[in-house]
Amino acid sequence: MIGFGLIGSSLARVVRREGLARHISACARTGETLAKARKLGLADSYTTDPAAAVEGADLVVLATPLGVYAAIAEQIAPRLEPGAIVTDVGSVKSCAIRDVAPHMPEGVHFVPGHPIAGTEHSGPESGFAELFEGRWCVLTPPPGADEGAVERVAELWRRAGSTIEVMDAAHHDQVLAITSHLPHLIAYTIVGTATDLENHLQKEVVKFSAAGFRDFTRIAASDPIFWRDVFLNNRDAVLEVLGRFNEDLTALQRAIRRGEGAVLEDAFTRTRAIRRGVIEAKQA
Amino acid sequence: MIGFGLIGSSLARVVRREGLARHISACARTGETLAKARKLGLADSYTTDPAAAVEGADLVVLATPLGVYAAIAEQIAPRLEPGAIVTDVGSVKSCAIRDVAPHMPEGVHFVPGHPIAGTEHSGPESGFAELFEGRWCVLTPPPGADEGAVERVAELWRRAGSTIEVMDAAHHDQVLAITSHLPHLIAYTIVGTATDLENHLQKEVVKFSAAGFRDFTRIAASDPIFWRDVFLNNRDAVLEVLGRFNEDLTALQRAIRRGEGAVLEDAFTRTRAIRRGVIEAKQA
Repeated sequence: MIGFGLIGSSLARVVRREGLARHISACARTGETLAKARKLGLADSYTTDPAAAVEGADLVVLATPLGVYAAIAEQIAPRLEPGAIVTDVGSVKSCAIRDVAPHMPEGVHFVPGHPIAGTEHSGPESGFAELFEGRWCVLTPPPGADEGAVERVAELWRRAGSTIEVMDAAHHDQVLAITSHLPHLIAYTIVGTATDLENHLQKEVVKFSAAGFRDFTRIAASDPIFWRDVFLNNRDAVLEVLGRFNEDLTALQRAIRRGEGAVLEDAFTRTRAIRRGVIEAKQA
Repeated sequence: MIGFGLIGSSLARVVRREGLARHISACARTGETLAKARKLGLADSYTTDPAAAVEGADLVVLATPLGVYAAIAEQIAPRLEPGAIVTDVGSVKSCAIRDVAPHMPEGVHFVPGHPIAGTEHSGPESGFAELFEGRWCVLTPPPGADEGAVERVAELWRRAGSTIEVMDAAHHDQVLAITSHLPHLIAYTIVGTATDLENHLQKEVVKFSAAGFRDFTRIAASDPIFWRDVFLNNRDAVLEVLGRFNEDLTALQRAIRRGEGAVLEDAFTRTRAIRRGVIEAKQA
């Protein structure tokens, strides 16, 4: 397990609960994170060296921010066992393939994955084994990927309580740009806008945040490095959907300025169908 | 109680639980809403005629969308008892004063109020007496308002479990534009953007909505008429804060396009302080 934050540590808890590995090696960049993991007893060995962590491993999980994938892949490549499976949990899949696949030695299988689960909290102390239950896990194996390796990664996530969906990496990145990346960008923006207010006004915004704003503050409390790397690595898909969003927002802004009640009412009514869909899909 | 949806019916439940009135009259525009209220046994009498509802009342609560305030104020004015108190629960206060105060007869006290509480559900069947517990209720009495009347309305909300804050109506509207109106506008926009996607993509957006999007669908499921009237009646404050939001979003968009990781990381880090404030203020 390379990277031992919310997702990595939660998955380690699942692996232990389900008895899926004889040995779990926890690798984190900082000694601080490792110390937390050790205190929680979440692994069998602890190291800050990715190459040492993968020694003898049959399954390697990358659970770091996307920005260090290439460097880690390069570091671990010489130590990977033939037949080993490398997977990841990153939120953008095209860049995961771009940064990891070229470094993988012959006979090592790379199966990119993305559990659609998380909270606004970070660090190994925030993880829990039930995080993935009832959620989707998307796998984006490149064409020609080893079916046995894909199935093994799929089985890991099924044991975590997730349902598997296999899709193309580029398509994944487009869907997630809408369902995850844009919502986070918007939440960060609106909370940032409030952060720039005069001090007395900002205090009142916090005080009366229950009116809608607090939901955005929760989303905008997510890990900054993680999200920086998402936006740097899914730029085109995010800019595309952001362009659509801006057009739609401008249209509503215009309706407000002109006092066009019918336009507003229609826009606010149409959105209810999607909410019903979310509830019916049991994702609410 | 004129208007018997989520807020009106919840307040009626409080009034009954606390034994605050000898007689509760429920007034709704549609027979359908009244039938629901009657079935739930939430009032002592039921009518679709606002003028009939206020007959003999010592406290009148307006809990309709803002757009019908002026018409209702005009209708009820001739039947209001001398010394009666009229209050409301609307989300914009300047327009409440503009539309109601001029119609109030001599000796009738108008005390505008706004409980900062709600859910995405509508109708009397969605209400519950605990809705206001631990929340703020803002009162915006105009200069020279009767102190006894203000105190009586304040006491009603204290019995509902709320804490009272008194402020100027224009200031209230500015604060709420940020904490409530803009978040709702943004949520409606992003869900609307998803609604316009090609059908197959839209299905996937619903499927993978747990990644952040679903929180917006909840906010964007709120009552369309209610929100139409908010935006029509708090236009200037909403457009002002929307202008700031647009500038900030454009700056982030530019940073994404240029690959400026440091700008993104800084923006995503600054927002954490506000979240801490929300948690410390026990509004999370």
